[in-house]
Amino acid sequence: MAKSMKIGFIGSGMVAQTLGAKLLELGNEVMISSRDLSVVKDKGNMGKLPSANQWVAAQEKKGHKAHAGSFADAAAFGEVIFNCTTGIHSLEALNAAGEKNLRGKILVDIANPLDFSKGMPPMIAFCNSESLGERIQAAFPNTKVVKTLNTVNANIQVNPSLVKGEHSVFLAGNDDEAKKWVNDILLTKWFGWKDVIDLGDLSASRGMEMYLGLWARMWGKFSTPYVNIKVVR
Amino acid sequence: MAKSMKIGFIGSGMVAQTLGAKLLELGNEVMISSRDLSVVKDKGNMGKLPSANQWVAAQEKKGHKAHAGSFADAAAFGEVIFNCTTGIHSLEALNAAGEKNLRGKILVDIANPLDFSKGMPPMIAFCNSESLGERIQAAFPNTKVVKTLNTVNANIQVNPSLVKGEHSVFLAGNDDEAKKWVNDILLTKWFGWKDVIDLGDLSASRGMEMYLGLWARMWGKFSTPYVNIKVVR
Repeated sequence: MAKSMKIGFIGSGMVAQTLGAKLLELGNEVMISSRDLSVVKDKGNMGKLPSANQWVAAQEKKGHKAHAGSFADAAAFGEVIFNCTTGIHSLEALNAAGEKNLRGKILVDIANPLDFSKGMPPMIAFCNSESLGERIQAAFPNTKVVKTLNTVNANIQVNPSLVKGEHSVFLAGNDDEAKKWVNDILLTKWFGWKDVIDLGDLSASRGMEMYLGLWARMWGKFSTPYVNIKVVR
Repeated sequence: MAKSMKIGFIGSGMVAQTLGAKLLELGNEVMISSRDLSVVKDKGNMGKLPSANQWVAAQEKKGHKAHAGSFADAAAFGEVIFNCTTGIHSLEALNAAGEKNLRGKILVDIANPLDFSKGMPPMIAFCNSESLGERIQAAFPNTKVVKTLNTVNANIQVNPSLVKGEHSVFLAGNDDEAKKWVNDILLTKWFGWKDVIDLGDLSASRGMEMYLGLWARMWGKFSTPYVNIKVVR
């Protein structure tokens, strides 16, 4: 077992709550973050999402070390930081988190720059010659951005066995040591991924984010987000 | 065995020659097309691509019914038409092929709107809220456009067993009867695909084309185009 860590989440939505709960179960200490810790979000037919404060209370009842705070609080708290904000608002949230709180740390970028303003399927906001992963790295050159897990639903991210059969997850980043931690500890040991494909430097975020166009269509086709791909080679 | 057909190719490049050869082997009659039937293309480290005329001569030696002509000749000749042009030039080529020659026919669109003008990896020219498949359908409303096979290398298109293990190919189109022919005859019976995923109407071309961003990156990663994905669900 890897040692227990302090993990900060930029965001408090479905992805932050799902990954946060899993990382707490594994014995880590977790802080999620939001502009408003008391807001309950209505996710339509997916039900109501607990507020950050409600989520912390529920986790504490289980005996876990859970906290909630501002974006800056979570960034200062974490030894490793997860970006679980809506992709088109990620840079704004990370700026609020603060360069000095992110400096020198691994930032696991799970976000997708999806724009739902024109309905379904969503547009990819930064398409083609750029990506959210690269934009974040450019804005925070002293932070070790690792793009991963953005190609699957949050429940699958922490529990790949929800999809039957072999399937793959991708990884990209400019810092080899940071990628090694994400690969060996986070993805393999903690979350149980068996086929992690390292696509190289962060420019691979482009393909990983553009894939969401196909993913969204498959979600519609199979009427479930529990779908993924196995790279056969 | 499905009955022998006359098949017209818009294009005479690697994809047209690979699919044309396979369809000839299966007993069909094939016409490929080009602006210049005598030009030999240098594909760098992939060697020289025979001219349309050289290809026809080689196929005739094998006893096959192969022909070459103008875009309009091939469109008039075919009962079914394949678009195997470079995606960013497809509409120009199809306009030269002529609306009246394409009217009422199935047009299998294999092209990707890749723009190599800024180097590797290529950009996707019509990204996100539009696609080449939809643009072609809009320009030729009386033609039955079916998007398929654009997510794999030409050799895999006609011989899926080149990739070991189960893997998938996609299908999209607005005309169910046309899709049924492409699914049942072309993909399943003739080419041997076992997992064909019908993603619905032609707007699915968006995701199928945007996937190329990830595909190009994987090609680089694995140093082979013999890579594909299995959709696990």
